[in-house]
Amino acid sequence: MDAAHEARNMEAFRQAVVNTLERRLFYIPSFKIYRGVAGLYDYGPPGCAVKSNVLAFWRQHFVLEENMLEVDCPCVTPEVVLKASGHVDKFTDLMVKDEKSGTCYRADHLLKDYCKEKLEKEPNLSAEKREELKHVLATLDDLSSEELGAKLKGYGITAPDTKNVLSDPYPFNLMFQTSIGPSGLSPGYMRPETAQGIFVNFKDLYYYNGNKLPFAAAQIGQAFRNEISPRQGLLRVREFTLAEIEHFVDPEDKSHPKFSEVANLDFLMFPREDQVSGKSARRMPIGDAVSQGIVNNQTLGYFIGRVYLFLTLLGIDKDRLRFRQHLANEMAHYAADCWDAEIECSYGWIECVGIADRSAYDLRAHTDKSGIDLVAHEKFPEPREVEKLIIAPVKKELGLAFKGSQKMVVEALESMTEKEAMEMKQTLESKGEAEFRVCTLDKVVTIKSNMVSIEKKKIKEHQRVFTPSVIEPSFGIGRIIYCLYEHSFYTRSSRDGDEQMNVFRFPPLIAPIKCTVFPLVQNQQYEDVAKKIAKSLTAAGISYKIDITGTSIGKRYARTDELGVPFAITVDSTSSVTVRERDSKQQIRVNVDEVASVIKEVTDGVSTWADVQWKYPTHSS
Amino acid sequence: MDAAHEARNMEAFRQAVVNTLERRLFYIPSFKIYRGVAGLYDYGPPGCAVKSNVLAFWRQHFVLEENMLEVDCPCVTPEVVLKASGHVDKFTDLMVKDEKSGTCYRADHLLKDYCKEKLEKEPNLSAEKREELKHVLATLDDLSSEELGAKLKGYGITAPDTKNVLSDPYPFNLMFQTSIGPSGLSPGYMRPETAQGIFVNFKDLYYYNGNKLPFAAAQIGQAFRNEISPRQGLLRVREFTLAEIEHFVDPEDKSHPKFSEVANLDFLMFPREDQVSGKSARRMPIGDAVSQGIVNNQTLGYFIGRVYLFLTLLGIDKDRLRFRQHLANEMAHYAADCWDAEIECSYGWIECVGIADRSAYDLRAHTDKSGIDLVAHEKFPEPREVEKLIIAPVKKELGLAFKGSQKMVVEALESMTEKEAMEMKQTLESKGEAEFRVCTLDKVVTIKSNMVSIEKKKIKEHQRVFTPSVIEPSFGIGRIIYCLYEHSFYTRSSRDGDEQMNVFRFPPLIAPIKCTVFPLVQNQQYEDVAKKIAKSLTAAGISYKIDITGTSIGKRYARTDELGVPFAITVDSTSSVTVRERDSKQQIRVNVDEVASVIKEVTDGVSTWADVQWKYPTHSS
Repeated sequence: MDAAHEARNMEAFRQAVVNTLERRLFYIPSFKIYRGVAGLYDYGPPGCAVKSNVLAFWRQHFVLEENMLEVDCPCVTPEVVLKASGHVDKFTDLMVKDEKSGTCYRADHLLKDYCKEKLEKEPNLSAEKREELKHVLATLDDLSSEELGAKLKGYGITAPDTKNVLSDPYPFNLMFQTSIGPSGLSPGYMRPETAQGIFVNFKDLYYYNGNKLPFAAAQIGQAFRNEISPRQGLLRVREFTLAEIEHFVDPEDKSHPKFSEVANLDFLMFPREDQVSGKSARRMPIGDAVSQGIVNNQTLGYFIGRVYLFLTLLGIDKDRLRFRQHLANEMAHYAADCWDAEIECSYGWIECVGIADRSAYDLRAHTDKSGIDLVAHEKFPEPREVEKLIIAPVKKELGLAFKGSQKMVVEALESMTEKEAMEMKQTLESKGEAEFRVCTLDKVVTIKSNMVSIEKKKIKEHQRVFTPSVIEPSFGIGRIIYCLYEHSFYTRSSRDGDEQMNVFRFPPLIAPIKCTVFPLVQNQQYEDVAKKIAKSLTAAGISYKIDITGTSIGKRYARTDELGVPFAITVDSTSSVTVRERDSKQQIRVNVDEVASVIKEVTDGVSTWADVQWKYPTHSS
Repeated sequence: MDAAHEARNMEAFRQAVVNTLERRLFYIPSFKIYRGVAGLYDYGPPGCAVKSNVLAFWRQHFVLEENMLEVDCPCVTPEVVLKASGHVDKFTDLMVKDEKSGTCYRADHLLKDYCKEKLEKEPNLSAEKREELKHVLATLDDLSSEELGAKLKGYGITAPDTKNVLSDPYPFNLMFQTSIGPSGLSPGYMRPETAQGIFVNFKDLYYYNGNKLPFAAAQIGQAFRNEISPRQGLLRVREFTLAEIEHFVDPEDKSHPKFSEVANLDFLMFPREDQVSGKSARRMPIGDAVSQGIVNNQTLGYFIGRVYLFLTLLGIDKDRLRFRQHLANEMAHYAADCWDAEIECSYGWIECVGIADRSAYDLRAHTDKSGIDLVAHEKFPEPREVEKLIIAPVKKELGLAFKGSQKMVVEALESMTEKEAMEMKQTLESKGEAEFRVCTLDKVVTIKSNMVSIEKKKIKEHQRVFTPSVIEPSFGIGRIIYCLYEHSFYTRSSRDGDEQMNVFRFPPLIAPIKCTVFPLVQNQQYEDVAKKIAKSLTAAGISYKIDITGTSIGKRYARTDELGVPFAITVDSTSSVTVRERDSKQQIRVNVDEVASVIKEVTDGVSTWADVQWKYPTHSS
């Protein structure tokens, strides 16, 4: 099958899924009667139930299992917090504007579309040109504003809707801005992630945990991203639910006591080196990935394993799930390591969970901005004499030499490793000056011996004070759910073979409705039995749908297969009923009084369908 | 006890509750390390768990029990939706500004504070003056902007912080405003309630329900209110969780099939007439309130009963819960009836749930604005000949006569009852003109006979097309939780009588942590048993706290009583353990292997503590 054919198949498959989802109200474009707003979607009844089920399972699998401290912080966030986190300055996309109509576009999207279209629609392109365009696509995310502008101009790219000339690219901040209180003097934003709410509470949470590390805090909540021009349906939206974990750990000990429980899990990993050398993702036990140093540490590895379990238990196909390591240029300069759980769907491989070791960056940033020390303490049983490296930048001299860049130079000097510092000390003593690379300035500066004093001192320490590292698994719940829809969807022939019927094969845990109750034919007796069963299902906390219309039983099954309802109870006598499993279509006979508890067993995961099939007689219709 | 003394006691009680809540991180002022933001609070770990439990119970009690259609819509809302709902124009508070410092105050708060202080602190006030101030307090909510301004000026009220002169009151819109997309041309707001998301989806939801009435939709989510100057701690906040139900019903049949299930519930009702005549709230079966016409209809009554059950099952004290009917001047002009569930706490009687019959107002407003008919259909078995009242306003004539007010006059004419219309017809025919009160203009206008035609026509109808009424129970989750904290809090003496210990008597359903696991003394064997039990609790989905420190068992109990943990497992042997109930402090002995399932039984509500006490031997320590 050639690429274009495959793309068309993909497109057709996606259309089938999306049509079913929209028709059955899994989701609805928000404010539809007002022609909607791009990038905003409602979850209708079945979608909303799937979402609650996913979140309830997330709580069980992560929060409860690991005794995490769950918090719930507001979406409205004052500017100072997002200044500290870097979002006010850096949470931007490059935008170009149609100078006449005022319509805005994401600069990289226009370039991407141009290259893709050329490659797809112009078969006579020279090999050289093809390589050039492919290279642009591969390096799209690394282009600076100037480079992007030059490429757009170079290719003569204009506004897609009007063909008007476009502005140069400029950064647009993706946060929704607002104002807190009536004065207009307190700018605020709708949070772009939930993590900051946890970081600013570190001190209290550490205390709540008995001043002990490691511990994890977690938060589920809305986050916002004012996309320039949202595309890709449910995957790129302006408001979404995040579930985030911040696991705080001693940077000197990132082992995990439960690592052995996941070490033998074996799944698709895509390390940095394999990406660079053009290899494919490969199956590897997570234990090996950690012991070979491919994954930075046990705690990071533990969470990768737990995320794998979480996603596959939800119903994500394990063959279309991979963990891809960030390339060096993708990763923030402070991060120790970062892996994305990517799920393959009709849009390609989609980042659904990010699992990053962010080192001490976030806590340090808030310590600096707030003046409150967000640190942990390790008390020594008795005082220790330690030799300590003291780096004392002379701010006055540095200020004269570097003016506005002084702060970055000071920070870079202070964060030298012992080895770097001792080398500089030696160079300064021998030559009077030293070359020094400041990453945050991206240049090399000359440090003179009057600008910094470096020495080792012996001091007595009673405790170690340090900023914990944070390991952050961050889940895009909407994206996971969308991929789950694609992975769960299939079609099969109707009984008479005339029609293709849609089915979602959701596991009972996730299914929006756990079972249906159908009287086989319309009569008062059967209806009474159905209502009695419905009542016992409610009491057992099981969501169900009752359908007492005279529609044929086949049609009623088909309607609810399309909602992914795993079990159907059909009332065909007043003493016992049939229970049908959605995917196998097999049926068993169960007494009316027992049926609610059987359904509870199989939906709670206490028993499998095979277990109850063993226990109850088969019914053949 | 005199009023001042009682107020001081109240204040002391509140301080004790709030101190405990803050110390144990039930809640935390948001962004505390940056000195916080008024009106924003985080839920810390126990508060977050209480909130999840309340919401899970809400879903079980309302959504599952009534087969409601739950939806989940975004917070970001385009202006057009909130124009239609009236929020852009009317969701305001009156504000005054310190002309020099720019500080803003709520105008009614300043007047209220002034009156209260005078009444409390000036015992020599004349009886006449006292009456005047009391009258101002009683009618505060009814004052217009001008009246409020006149009172502030009259009493010489200045800015509390600076004593500067204040501006005249002017309306401040309480919605957080933002801008959707990069153009700056699409204003949006953070939703002030979740209800609008349901109304705009009415058509799809009605279809999802098989085009049948009645049905209810529900939504849980964040709502926002940019308060001018938030006070009263957790009761008046800028971001909060709402849980709202919109029950759509045929306006001609508001009976409820399950009304008999609640009819005998008997609780404090406070009808409008009793309030006006200075009586107190009185106990009354809800069945009587409906049959006597005190509550407008069965469906409204049914929800009042269900709300009563919900709140008391959470742990709200039934003697400090009342249902207060809105006075005529409190109620929106379109509302058929409205009752607030008010809970008494140290701040007084607080509105926590509003239960309103909003008639067809909301669906009509969105029909008008969007041009999409949000209506229901009742097909007749065979066509009916009906006599129909046709009111046809002559817009041209009305436009000439009323200019900008034309629309309001047209709407008022069209919404006349049959009786009103026939009376007007008669008057117009006899006198050529008629006086007509237009509520939305708050004045009487003169309608001439060329401005409207009114007649009765016989027509054949195949179906009835109508706008459903909506009955809306709307729950302020944060307020309910705060009141629950106050109602659950008590103190008792420590064993040695030296200290007062704090306890929250949360029911197991709501308790943030269901049980603790304590080895009696520090040894490896007990610790292993404790960890084994912990594992089985996790598997059973029960949240627990394990404490293996050497702290005395009494202190460990006290620490967790303060978190409202209902059950404590103490490991004092390797075969069986004790289980202690928080409030009675009674203990039973249970086998290690059974203990998780015993805890599950009593926390799920399958058994009571009395049941398991009967089954297992008592342990006396």
